Amino acid sequence: MSASEQQAADAAAMRRALDLAVLGPARGVNPRVGCVILSPAGERLAEGWHRGVGTAHAEVDALAKLEPGAARGATAVVTLEPCNHTGHTGPCAVALIEAGIGRVVYAVADPGEHSSGGAERLRAAGVEVTAGVLVDEVEAMLDDWLFAARNHRPHVTVKWASSLDGRAAAADGTSQWITGPEARADVHRRRSAADAIAVGTGTVFADDPSLTARAPGGEFFDAQPVPVVFGRRAVPSDAAITRHPHAPLFFEGADLRADLAELARRGIRSLFIEGGPTLASAFIADGLVDELLVYLAPALLGGPRLALGELGVPTIDAAIRLDFAVIERLGDDVLLVARPTEGN
Amino acid sequence: MSASEQQAADAAAMRRALDLAVLGPARGVNPRVGCVILSPAGERLAEGWHRGVGTAHAEVDALAKLEPGAARGATAVVTLEPCNHTGHTGPCAVALIEAGIGRVVYAVADPGEHSSGGAERLRAAGVEVTAGVLVDEVEAMLDDWLFAARNHRPHVTVKWASSLDGRAAAADGTSQWITGPEARADVHRRRSAADAIAVGTGTVFADDPSLTARAPGGEFFDAQPVPVVFGRRAVPSDAAITRHPHAPLFFEGADLRADLAELARRGIRSLFIEGGPTLASAFIADGLVDELLVYLAPALLGGPRLALGELGVPTIDAAIRLDFAVIERLGDDVLLVARPTEGN
Repeated sequence: MSASEQQAADAAAMRRALDLAVLGPARGVNPRVGCVILSPAGERLAEGWHRGVGTAHAEVDALAKLEPGAARGATAVVTLEPCNHTGHTGPCAVALIEAGIGRVVYAVADPGEHSSGGAERLRAAGVEVTAGVLVDEVEAMLDDWLFAARNHRPHVTVKWASSLDGRAAAADGTSQWITGPEARADVHRRRSAADAIAVGTGTVFADDPSLTARAPGGEFFDAQPVPVVFGRRAVPSDAAITRHPHAPLFFEGADLRADLAELARRGIRSLFIEGGPTLASAFIADGLVDELLVYLAPALLGGPRLALGELGVPTIDAAIRLDFAVIERLGDDVLLVARPTEGN
Repeated sequence: MSASEQQAADAAAMRRALDLAVLGPARGVNPRVGCVILSPAGERLAEGWHRGVGTAHAEVDALAKLEPGAARGATAVVTLEPCNHTGHTGPCAVALIEAGIGRVVYAVADPGEHSSGGAERLRAAGVEVTAGVLVDEVEAMLDDWLFAARNHRPHVTVKWASSLDGRAAAADGTSQWITGPEARADVHRRRSAADAIAVGTGTVFADDPSLTARAPGGEFFDAQPVPVVFGRRAVPSDAAITRHPHAPLFFEGADLRADLAELARRGIRSLFIEGGPTLASAFIADGLVDELLVYLAPALLGGPRLALGELGVPTIDAAIRLDFAVIERLGDDVLLVARPTEGN
């Protein structure tokens, strides 16, 4: 095979591995991984994918389908760098070496602290290693998992709905409904796409939210975010979140970075923070927010109930600078999606 | 002439009267008015327009170009209902009657308290009167003048620039520059289009604004809004507004509706309110605002310096409801133009 034929064959096999990967579960602690074993002549000998924590990794799943010795001199094409870690299963790098694999092709390097180093181990054992094949496509598929693995925390979105003058509620605390049905439906769709949804205890006491993701008719979406409550106060035993399909998680919130790391360890890759102002402000002030969703209603409220509180910004040069990524009309309201500027 | 030929001839003459009207001054106490005198056969005998306070009204300007008796039986086509009022000049209705005009065609009824009733007076004298010809076009031309005449106040626009969380400045009061150059240029263009620009004394003391309309290079636009200051405190004698091309007007602000009526009497048809929060909130709470321009910067500030203060809204059902008329990106910022909903 010429070099360009080899590249084309690697890419074709990787595309198949990607298709296999997405058969696995989209949420949880482990990434979705697919693997294809090719003979030296380029025939597909076996395929595998990872089905979630406690089950075989993709490489081992594929190798298990072969007779002993059948993988000798073969090429393993895998979406993620084979792990070098003994957890529920042994290191895949070792399994590949022991099976006599002659060449490993992977897309994305393993960002894990404990699991990386597989490529090095393979090379040390004389296995030829090619990295970066279809890296963009695989990175896109692993998006939220890679974010959480690289940053040791979930991707954090803060959402608020406010009047045009930045108030989340009227003077007496009433806020239903500042925004219209289109904006509320958008929030529920985004809730459903998040792994977890957080509020402060103040919001639990004030609003008793259910933190479920529902269609406009009230039906639950299939995917429900795990409810997370930050704060020191005990939540009432009859609070609506106690009836959530997922058991709520509780954090004191004294060290938000540590709390987020714990959420990531539990497989939470994306966190949707819904309120109130104290919790949102704390995450923003700590620089732990990746995206803001601001639903602006065409209304004025005045008064003391702000959507955001104190951020510790003393002067204009210290403003937390963002970029408006999306500006979208939702019924009578406007959604502004903003992200911190690079290097902010 | 058939009825439809008559209509076409009236419209053609009115279009000419509209062209003449806009030769007059766009600002001031009096409206722009144009007039065409047609012979019974439809030939244009004379034309006229109004050149501002103290000069002849359009009808008299046109009649003055004819020999005595030449207008007998003629048709006067005029953009605004002939006045019935003796001010700097006598009532145009009387001038038309005395000239022997047989028919008057006009577009828009005179909304003035003292000047209306001209059509009635003409009819009573046996003159045939046709109203409403090209009424939409002439209303559009008279837009701000009609607004002020009908509402006994200028059209009021409140502008503020704030961070996404509704703050107009950082905790230490610094605010230059929350928004970027495109937003600031837009503000100056709109200032130039307004008859007057208002601030509270708090803003004069805090920011010492010049209240001039300038191009990005600093050059003054030809049209400058009249600076207006609301508040009880005396402005420092060396304040920047004292060097404004127009002499500033001062109001205590205890009765904003009365102050606006006085501005309208002085020929101010549009008022641009630039700050601060106290003044803007007072106008909004009094229901005296027709348009809001909110320049939202992609930034967060937190802290106590809000773009709007107290509005007297106790509960969400009493929110001041608006419509978003325009949502526009201006550089990195977003401009939201909002107007009170009908019947609010």
